[in-house]
Amino acid sequence: MRAVDIIIKKRDGGTLSAEEIRFFIDAYTAGKIQDDQAAALMMSIFFRGMDYKETAALTLAMAESGEQVDLSGIKGVKVDKHSTGGIGDKTSMIVAPVTAACGVPVAKMSGRALGFTGGTIDKLESIPGLSTSIPVDKMVEIVNRTGICIAGQTSELAPADKKLYALRDVTGTIESIPLIAASIMSKKIAAGADAIVLDVKYGSGAFMKTKEEAQKLADTMCGIGEEVGRKTVAVLNTMEIPLGMCIGNSIEVKESIDVLKGGGSQDLKEHCIHLAGKMIGLGLGISFGEAEKMAQKSIDDGSALKKFAEMIAAEGGDPEVCKDPDKIFGIPAYSKTVRAEKDGHIVKADAYRIGMAAFTLGAGRAVKTDPFDPNAGVKLIVKCDEEVKTGQELCILYSSKPITEESENWAKTAYIYE
Amino acid sequence: MRAVDIIIKKRDGGTLSAEEIRFFIDAYTAGKIQDDQAAALMMSIFFRGMDYKETAALTLAMAESGEQVDLSGIKGVKVDKHSTGGIGDKTSMIVAPVTAACGVPVAKMSGRALGFTGGTIDKLESIPGLSTSIPVDKMVEIVNRTGICIAGQTSELAPADKKLYALRDVTGTIESIPLIAASIMSKKIAAGADAIVLDVKYGSGAFMKTKEEAQKLADTMCGIGEEVGRKTVAVLNTMEIPLGMCIGNSIEVKESIDVLKGGGSQDLKEHCIHLAGKMIGLGLGISFGEAEKMAQKSIDDGSALKKFAEMIAAEGGDPEVCKDPDKIFGIPAYSKTVRAEKDGHIVKADAYRIGMAAFTLGAGRAVKTDPFDPNAGVKLIVKCDEEVKTGQELCILYSSKPITEESENWAKTAYIYE
Repeated sequence: MRAVDIIIKKRDGGTLSAEEIRFFIDAYTAGKIQDDQAAALMMSIFFRGMDYKETAALTLAMAESGEQVDLSGIKGVKVDKHSTGGIGDKTSMIVAPVTAACGVPVAKMSGRALGFTGGTIDKLESIPGLSTSIPVDKMVEIVNRTGICIAGQTSELAPADKKLYALRDVTGTIESIPLIAASIMSKKIAAGADAIVLDVKYGSGAFMKTKEEAQKLADTMCGIGEEVGRKTVAVLNTMEIPLGMCIGNSIEVKESIDVLKGGGSQDLKEHCIHLAGKMIGLGLGISFGEAEKMAQKSIDDGSALKKFAEMIAAEGGDPEVCKDPDKIFGIPAYSKTVRAEKDGHIVKADAYRIGMAAFTLGAGRAVKTDPFDPNAGVKLIVKCDEEVKTGQELCILYSSKPITEESENWAKTAYIYE
Repeated sequence: MRAVDIIIKKRDGGTLSAEEIRFFIDAYTAGKIQDDQAAALMMSIFFRGMDYKETAALTLAMAESGEQVDLSGIKGVKVDKHSTGGIGDKTSMIVAPVTAACGVPVAKMSGRALGFTGGTIDKLESIPGLSTSIPVDKMVEIVNRTGICIAGQTSELAPADKKLYALRDVTGTIESIPLIAASIMSKKIAAGADAIVLDVKYGSGAFMKTKEEAQKLADTMCGIGEEVGRKTVAVLNTMEIPLGMCIGNSIEVKESIDVLKGGGSQDLKEHCIHLAGKMIGLGLGISFGEAEKMAQKSIDDGSALKKFAEMIAAEGGDPEVCKDPDKIFGIPAYSKTVRAEKDGHIVKADAYRIGMAAFTLGAGRAVKTDPFDPNAGVKLIVKCDEEVKTGQELCILYSSKPITEESENWAKTAYIYE
């Protein structure tokens, strides 16, 4: 087999066999196929697409390119959850304890995100003492003891995906549905889950800009799941406006605790119950409707919050955060209230612009080695569809450093009047 | 400017500016843009194409990426000629002396071809003593003295093209009309010609398989010529059957001498007069019809053959070859006659298969460092549209090593019966 023949086959609209895909990925991971040929194949896939069988073969080849997590030491159906990301997306911190409280073991691995704010594990690590650098055997032990563990992804997971993603980033081949789907699913499969719930976002604050694209991505990932024998369910959700009212790291932990206590904003609560319902349904083999009721009950009776506290303690954090978050996190050094500059009807706080406000406040990072400010973030007071008066509070910006005009401008211009 | 933005612009069907193309090519040649990004751009161009302005900008950027030959020391309009290659294509060795004999200076640079047989300079170097490694100042001196010089291309000519061609070869991006056109024209422009005559082949023995593709390539190259201010004329010619009756290296020199003596096969003679007419017409600014008559006259009066002998002598070869080629070349050690295995009407000797016969006899090379056999080749006795009887001679195979069954089979199966 020659790499160039595989490239030409795809370039000319052919369907690659599982053997061809495996050959290419294995040789690329081993450094026997160079970046130029991989870039040419990625661009051919960008133009020609891949069917479910090809995409599944690519996913498996990437999933099996490195270490694969063995979760067989955990009893029950292990359900993982993945969100394609968005502004204020703290669902994992709510959904995981809810699902665990309902008896479905959650052994979840997360990567460190680049973006407007940190990813789930960055948010969790804003809790003093908590570390998500947990080896797999320790993770299995924690899940068997508490039913829940969210750990940082080990660097050996799906190295082919890591290498290909870096290549795609510089060669203009990120925006390909099969490649995005294979990238996500390869890590989930390598992370050892039996079933996968996907939370696919679309809109200004999401990677997928339209519902149609998001639906295609969801369908493709479910298609892969079916091909490789992992039950996969996808939920679509808009990201025109942030999810919930808090955007940042520690501030999102606080909002998650609010939801686990039965409070929090309605959109966030509903979305989390919906997602947890899918996870519980897949894990226990019951209807999603029944599962949602169990999820709600775990919040009402405090068992979900208890699970979250158990996980925090097991990962070295202070579980007192669940009782009094402000005491544990302290108050950010700087804050600034953004107020309405005119009377009128606010349609929405644009997700992308609020994300940029959070990012410029220090909540995110542009490259993996950048430090970030766990206390930086935005708290929305007005989010959408609301009549406001001049001078009314719209949101509050927080940071450990003085708040710049740039951050304020992103926040101000995020508010779209009718 | 960022390479990835240029890739994405082309990927999404945009038109690149001359500045963007120049930035990319300059940075790639300097090693500041890597092969992966160049491969992604090439594949995007494969899918999206380029208009004449973009293609001309690419051509100029490649032409100016290294040394540019200064032929200003030669008086008159310097006309170059390029053939896209084919089986038995020895036109340069006929057309160049004819053109020079008519008073148009020919300072032609040729690359060493990879293929069924050697390229023009390999064929010329089959003449004992002749060397085409001629520096530019020596070339100018030879042309001013004799009116003609065919030299090996210096390695510094259009280094961007060299680098890109090697990349395209392994990334499945060879078959793109604008990229092929820019590659050819960049070298011609860097080689210093004022006007260019293109001999574009199509058919089984050519790179372009159909007349439509060949026409597109011809139009694109003429479009580039117009954009960059070099008069460019293209001639289309079929390559379903070999050109002339001899395929190899020294054997093609012999056939060229036959034509210059007024003999040779009709198709070859006509094609050469046609091409020389274009070159002379462009060079002297006269009608192509009038120029063709001059070309024919230079053969009839022996002045073209005299020019060829002068060039051979100037390049260190033995001009006696023009009088008695067999004496100079000697007789190949091995030969084998291929005969008709049945009675019938032969439609054609397929160019590709005859080319493969020549290649397996040792006439060509697969990589630049391969040695090749100057005396290996095929002499056709039957070429097309001819009634044959069982046992009749179809062609003779020559080689310096024993002739294999493989070569014989390629030759046998090349003959297509009605």
